[in-house]
Amino acid sequence: MINFKENAKLNTLNHSCAHVLAQAVKHLYNDAKFWVGPVIESGFYYDIDLGDITLTLDDLPAIEKEMKKIIKDGKKIIRSELTKKEALEKFKDDPYKIDLINRMDEENTVISCYSQGDFTDLCRGPHMDTVKACKHFKLLKVSGAYFKGDENNKMLQRIYGVCFETEEELTAYLEELEEAKKRDHRKLGRDLGIFMTSDLVGKGLPMYLPNGYIIWEELENYIKGKEKKLDYHHVLTPPLGNVELYKKSGHWEHYQEDMFPKMEVDGEEFVLRPMNCPHHMMIYSNSIHSYKDLPIRIGEIARDCRFEASGALKGIERARTFCQNDAHLFVTPEQIEEEFKSVVNLILEVYQELGIKNYHFELSLRDKEDKVKYYQDENMWNHAEDTLRSVLDNIGIEYKEKIGEAAFYGPKLDVQVTPAVGNEYTLSTCQLDFCLPMKFNLTYVDKDGSKKTPVVLHRAVFGSLDRFIAYYLEETKGALPTWLSPLQVTVIPVNNTYHLDYANTIYEILKEQNIRVYLDDREEKLNYKIRESQIKKVPYTLILGQKEIDDNKISYRLFKSKETITLDKEQFVNKILEEIKKYKS
Amino acid sequence: MINFKENAKLNTLNHSCAHVLAQAVKHLYNDAKFWVGPVIESGFYYDIDLGDITLTLDDLPAIEKEMKKIIKDGKKIIRSELTKKEALEKFKDDPYKIDLINRMDEENTVISCYSQGDFTDLCRGPHMDTVKACKHFKLLKVSGAYFKGDENNKMLQRIYGVCFETEEELTAYLEELEEAKKRDHRKLGRDLGIFMTSDLVGKGLPMYLPNGYIIWEELENYIKGKEKKLDYHHVLTPPLGNVELYKKSGHWEHYQEDMFPKMEVDGEEFVLRPMNCPHHMMIYSNSIHSYKDLPIRIGEIARDCRFEASGALKGIERARTFCQNDAHLFVTPEQIEEEFKSVVNLILEVYQELGIKNYHFELSLRDKEDKVKYYQDENMWNHAEDTLRSVLDNIGIEYKEKIGEAAFYGPKLDVQVTPAVGNEYTLSTCQLDFCLPMKFNLTYVDKDGSKKTPVVLHRAVFGSLDRFIAYYLEETKGALPTWLSPLQVTVIPVNNTYHLDYANTIYEILKEQNIRVYLDDREEKLNYKIRESQIKKVPYTLILGQKEIDDNKISYRLFKSKETITLDKEQFVNKILEEIKKYKS
Repeated sequence: MINFKENAKLNTLNHSCAHVLAQAVKHLYNDAKFWVGPVIESGFYYDIDLGDITLTLDDLPAIEKEMKKIIKDGKKIIRSELTKKEALEKFKDDPYKIDLINRMDEENTVISCYSQGDFTDLCRGPHMDTVKACKHFKLLKVSGAYFKGDENNKMLQRIYGVCFETEEELTAYLEELEEAKKRDHRKLGRDLGIFMTSDLVGKGLPMYLPNGYIIWEELENYIKGKEKKLDYHHVLTPPLGNVELYKKSGHWEHYQEDMFPKMEVDGEEFVLRPMNCPHHMMIYSNSIHSYKDLPIRIGEIARDCRFEASGALKGIERARTFCQNDAHLFVTPEQIEEEFKSVVNLILEVYQELGIKNYHFELSLRDKEDKVKYYQDENMWNHAEDTLRSVLDNIGIEYKEKIGEAAFYGPKLDVQVTPAVGNEYTLSTCQLDFCLPMKFNLTYVDKDGSKKTPVVLHRAVFGSLDRFIAYYLEETKGALPTWLSPLQVTVIPVNNTYHLDYANTIYEILKEQNIRVYLDDREEKLNYKIRESQIKKVPYTLILGQKEIDDNKISYRLFKSKETITLDKEQFVNKILEEIKKYKS
Repeated sequence: MINFKENAKLNTLNHSCAHVLAQAVKHLYNDAKFWVGPVIESGFYYDIDLGDITLTLDDLPAIEKEMKKIIKDGKKIIRSELTKKEALEKFKDDPYKIDLINRMDEENTVISCYSQGDFTDLCRGPHMDTVKACKHFKLLKVSGAYFKGDENNKMLQRIYGVCFETEEELTAYLEELEEAKKRDHRKLGRDLGIFMTSDLVGKGLPMYLPNGYIIWEELENYIKGKEKKLDYHHVLTPPLGNVELYKKSGHWEHYQEDMFPKMEVDGEEFVLRPMNCPHHMMIYSNSIHSYKDLPIRIGEIARDCRFEASGALKGIERARTFCQNDAHLFVTPEQIEEEFKSVVNLILEVYQELGIKNYHFELSLRDKEDKVKYYQDENMWNHAEDTLRSVLDNIGIEYKEKIGEAAFYGPKLDVQVTPAVGNEYTLSTCQLDFCLPMKFNLTYVDKDGSKKTPVVLHRAVFGSLDRFIAYYLEETKGALPTWLSPLQVTVIPVNNTYHLDYANTIYEILKEQNIRVYLDDREEKLNYKIRESQIKKVPYTLILGQKEIDDNKISYRLFKSKETITLDKEQFVNKILEEIKKYKS
């Protein structure tokens, strides 16, 4: 979706519209005091102090009406400039403005104000010439927001909106927004019985329902199958560890604020792990390795726990516990290129097989000038960055270089995607790490008998299975491909009295082949059953009547299709098995 | 193995031998003071205060020598009796004895002493007539033990031993002990690369290495496959929850001391879950159920965490985190019989398929007199107990009834097994529960439209996968059946120069069929390679030379067999696949 902040024209327009919003609120709520009204990625908002009043969606139409009145009136937007002293005097009754003005350092700062009719606001600008330009707007939602984001401060009312240059653009955007809401994985997850959440179980602790676990299990087996073919060795490690482990890895020092608090018991301290790298380092160090054994690829569907603020939680996309499709590849420096290439190819293969198209690559490199952040080994960095770049160039992948975005321990490649609602995130990653193997004193015996430190590639194809399921639900709008569908086939007899036996025979044939099938033998109307199968987004809906019995065939409709296709029973079974085959290891 | 405590003759004999041990120690360590020397299931021990001296295994031969001298000397063991007052006077210089004497309530208690030569000990008896009887003994180990088991008290030296009536019995027992040590899952787990432990990762937090995870994954898929056929629906829920959830379930009140401490953060309290019943109750309550939907079977390979004292930890048999092969069956009272029967049959089927024979059933019933412990619903209890009994009788299973051993919430059936070292434990269980569904207000709509409370069957076939793997390793002495073996086939060319190509062809054929195979192409001698394959307990060792190439066949040896069998390639592949097939869903 469009980014209002990065589009210069829309940015100015939405900024002006925020002022119109403020003006309208001032007309309706005389005591309103205004904090800030910035443009954000998804439009604009204004934080307003309305005393004890809490706004609801029902209040927005009246505000919109007043805004339209102001816009129709069509006042010019006029810029004026003040000294800091003049500004402090002019806004002396408004503590929020005084707060803002006092932040401006210099005595000589020129402070700009924008006025439109009876409303003036402190503002850096720029703005449109007239409020008329803000005609095509819509207020979207309202929420509470603490002053300066601090929960000890007063709760202000935050009103969100968007503004476009034309009514067509506005309409298109609002439709897109509606679509996005429909394909929000939280809605799909609820409607399709994928997962549930409950405050009693705990905020940020989603639970996979049977339909969700089917998807999970298929994805787990699919990716483990692929990894096995690439000689990954899977392990299983516990979701917690002794605090000492994270002191050794550095997480305790650098990552503690994202972790659950430690548990002290019987003189020991345990903590839920935010990532499983340290466990895998310990597994590597459990035996002696020769250069001949490398690369060693340790994989795990690994349970991790991070403490996210409750406001940041979002279904299974961002929860307080999740399972990474994680692996650590222990390699010699000479093997970086081939292993990195293999990881990139695996990511591309998976995306291709799953039909994922909306993503882009980002290659995060060090900032050469930054001698503090980055682990200092000029040769290692140069070698690593050149290798990564050349692998990507050779494969022919487009990517953005992000200077200074590398982790302190090495460069990385991220695959970024954007969800239906909210900001983009990383779906897959491959990170080089020079540091962790040293911290854990990992070694291998090289050809010459000397001990060397391996390089580690952290990689995750399904960054977390949870997040991947969230993303994939949104991409497919819940209409999952057959192999992932919780239910693959609905069998519906046209009439229970005459056709149920045949329907049952077909049901048994499919079940025997481990196809996930439901026989809808309820006493409901045919069309009702067909519609329900569509609502559940079942790939194949079989409708079996006298014709099918007479010809010993089956007829089906694909999801969202009204076309009926008739096939021999065996043909149909083979068709489905063929369709899911490539996802089975 | 024999239980010394429960065998009256051995009990007395070992008790007397403990006195001989004490006498010998007194001879060698003049300042020794004695606490208690009881008979235990595995023999006897004596706790001795040796001041600052810490004994090691190296000290035992000298003590044994002194014991033999005492036994050869052959003093009679003579009983004498004292009043409490006399006893306090007699042992006034021995604080440990004074402690013991002061525990005896009555002023008029008769306190017995046993003397043999220069040694007298307070003792209830009985004892042998003479120390001569203790001739066939062996000291086994020594360890530190806190006085009264309290770590704030002084550390005493605990010496363990056993005594038999004949040398033959002693020898047989010691051999059995050696065997048990060899098949201790902790030793096998280390030798076969199944799992590792590390204090840095955390005590009681074992990690499965690649070989271990292969076993895990096969077992997980095997049992889930069986459950799917029985219409279980699998879910995935997080290993922690809000403390409120456990307050609601009652675990917080009744089970807290076995749980990890809570984590408080941002005004919420979380705790690692000791069991997943509450999560599954919440899943049931997430939707409305009709009597037609029942039974509903919710299954999960569920991660749980319990805080075990460090002294109780034992490899993967008893750890601080484990995964239950758990399920909760929500049933109407009328369905208890059929569902319970189905669970028992599943357990029997699994045991039969896995060749498990050393187990016994225990049916735990309520104590009808105990009106406090047991949830009061006489009809419910009678119905449930009668049902369970009649199912077992109808199937024809032998079981022990354990009156008063039922949980407060309902009767249960446990399957008990005994490990190589240590006490018996529960491998599988099926428990009826009338209470938890009520606590969570679970309901279903019955035929008459009224809301009823379902009964829950908690059941676990592999009580925990971890514990099951421990047990199965011990039962098979690490020689797992082919389908579970981390490595199924070793392919060894007789001579790398001439036979490696053919060996590689066979390797590729097997790998293509997803058979876990290793091509041993190292420059080592043939016999060395064969021996190593045996040490790893690989089921099939293929030895391929000129004859096999000429005949286009393969020759193999089974684990522990010296017989060589020759087959066509296809025959061999089919044989293995056939062997594995029934364990695959």
